[in-house]
Amino acid sequence: MLENMWRGVAIVAASDEGYKLGERILKLLKNKEIPVVLYKYKEADIEKIWNCFDVIIFIMALEGSVRTICKYAKAKHLDPPVIGIDDLGKYVIPVLGGHWGANEVTLEISELINATPIITTASELKSKPNVELIAKLTISKIENPENIVKINSAILKGERVCLKGIDIKVEGLEEYSEECKYVITTTSEENINNHDKVILKLKPLELAVGIGSKKSVDIEIVSEKIIKILERLKIRNRIRVVASVREEMKRIAEILNAKFKLVSFDEIRNFEHPCLTPPSNKLIELGIKGVAEISALLAGGSSSRLVFRKISIDNEVTLA
Amino acid sequence: MLENMWRGVAIVAASDEGYKLGERILKLLKNKEIPVVLYKYKEADIEKIWNCFDVIIFIMALEGSVRTICKYAKAKHLDPPVIGIDDLGKYVIPVLGGHWGANEVTLEISELINATPIITTASELKSKPNVELIAKLTISKIENPENIVKINSAILKGERVCLKGIDIKVEGLEEYSEECKYVITTTSEENINNHDKVILKLKPLELAVGIGSKKSVDIEIVSEKIIKILERLKIRNRIRVVASVREEMKRIAEILNAKFKLVSFDEIRNFEHPCLTPPSNKLIELGIKGVAEISALLAGGSSSRLVFRKISIDNEVTLA
Repeated sequence: MLENMWRGVAIVAASDEGYKLGERILKLLKNKEIPVVLYKYKEADIEKIWNCFDVIIFIMALEGSVRTICKYAKAKHLDPPVIGIDDLGKYVIPVLGGHWGANEVTLEISELINATPIITTASELKSKPNVELIAKLTISKIENPENIVKINSAILKGERVCLKGIDIKVEGLEEYSEECKYVITTTSEENINNHDKVILKLKPLELAVGIGSKKSVDIEIVSEKIIKILERLKIRNRIRVVASVREEMKRIAEILNAKFKLVSFDEIRNFEHPCLTPPSNKLIELGIKGVAEISALLAGGSSSRLVFRKISIDNEVTLA
Repeated sequence: MLENMWRGVAIVAASDEGYKLGERILKLLKNKEIPVVLYKYKEADIEKIWNCFDVIIFIMALEGSVRTICKYAKAKHLDPPVIGIDDLGKYVIPVLGGHWGANEVTLEISELINATPIITTASELKSKPNVELIAKLTISKIENPENIVKINSAILKGERVCLKGIDIKVEGLEEYSEECKYVITTTSEENINNHDKVILKLKPLELAVGIGSKKSVDIEIVSEKIIKILERLKIRNRIRVVASVREEMKRIAEILNAKFKLVSFDEIRNFEHPCLTPPSNKLIELGIKGVAEISALLAGGSSSRLVFRKISIDNEVTLA
């Protein structure tokens, strides 16, 4: 599940002891190429974090997590999964979104730090998938929203709902066959006999990649690593633009058959976005807010959003 | 700690399985003469429960407790301790008020039902007592509220604060000696040299006892049992009125050197109070809302409040 958390894991620690545990989790997740940011509770803008990350881990007493959650929670289908860990790292507890990923992340984190997972949801009450979740997982736009309610209520009623041309597996949904009455498909799949069918069309969004790097990197090694990550994420063929402040990254655009956008430091300085990963101390010294995420968002244009928070590759290159 | 929860334990269960666990806890607490009421989540008026009980136990997935808590939580010093238990009774988790009783109750309940207590608060961060808590524990009114802030901030600063003539032990507060600058005392203790001292006076409130019973009970046995409970609660000498619909309970008033109030069923029928324990099915059949609590509140007069929720003695008598 953690590898699906593209917008990243936010770790928020209240005490010094908790922050040390946070640093340990940060390192473990970075090693797995999972986007992750560690915050001190006092300095964190929880409202931004709530809207910008795919999962939040609070390291503090459960009561602290609960009182914080109460300030920002809206509704089951709107809130990110939230996990609580005590300062000593004894327990990992899904606090919100047990059936929306928190249970799985809890199991993964507790294995990583050797803690006890405290799962309190009834396993038979698994929540059903919904159209919005599938659109999110496939980074798509729903083309005919008038059918959302029909498809979601078919899922809730336990009717057969099928996926066509969608490269993910979703528990409770089936692969397409002619008999399916309810179908979720992509706009590229036009060959469905839609007589008597309720079809929901997802338009895969175009993706832009932003790359930051040190001045001296071996572009062949870097491009190989980046391609490998894009393949793991199953988006290699969906990249339309590669953007960077470094001319040599054009090579990666060529390999991906994408356009290249050279970004200037001026553009970076003038760019604002609520979900940007806070800059490292080193970047702050250089007077830069960040490179990879801003490059990607600049290349994506004004309607773009951050779908994959930056990760670092070998401490030489960042990718968003 | 449970024995200090005079206004009672509210158990709120969401599922059928959770309700069965709730019935088990209900029985175990009743055996300990602890006031307790079990509710079905769908039927429960959580807002009333929030204000009327000394501790709330939610039997449901933690997320359910958290979303419910978010609707009613106000602030640390205003909210009751809240405990979460999963439907299977594997874990008992303090969710709110860890340092205000929830941790202790968690340990007691988990021992009772053989579950694992999940304590997440840092033990060194124990919250300090405060004047309001002491007034509550001693069922007293603060006579000179202008000194509350001074005493509370002395406690917070770790200065020496002493109790005089108060028959409870509170961690962090000392027994009175001449050197104490900050003193919490009762209005009956006038012999303090108050030169240079900051004194907070508590006026113990007068107490009324309400008794309900079956028609045929052995009054000698019943009175003995009731006196024993009042002694355990350390309020035997503070009872001013005993009230009941049964004339024979006058005997208990005599033993306690208290007045007796004979309550009529008409008075009971016309009485309303938000914190009354819901009537049992048997009482509903009889068209009665309850006896013990209403009798006590009627005897206490219009300014009275429920300080000890009714308990049942041998299924023959109720006491509030």
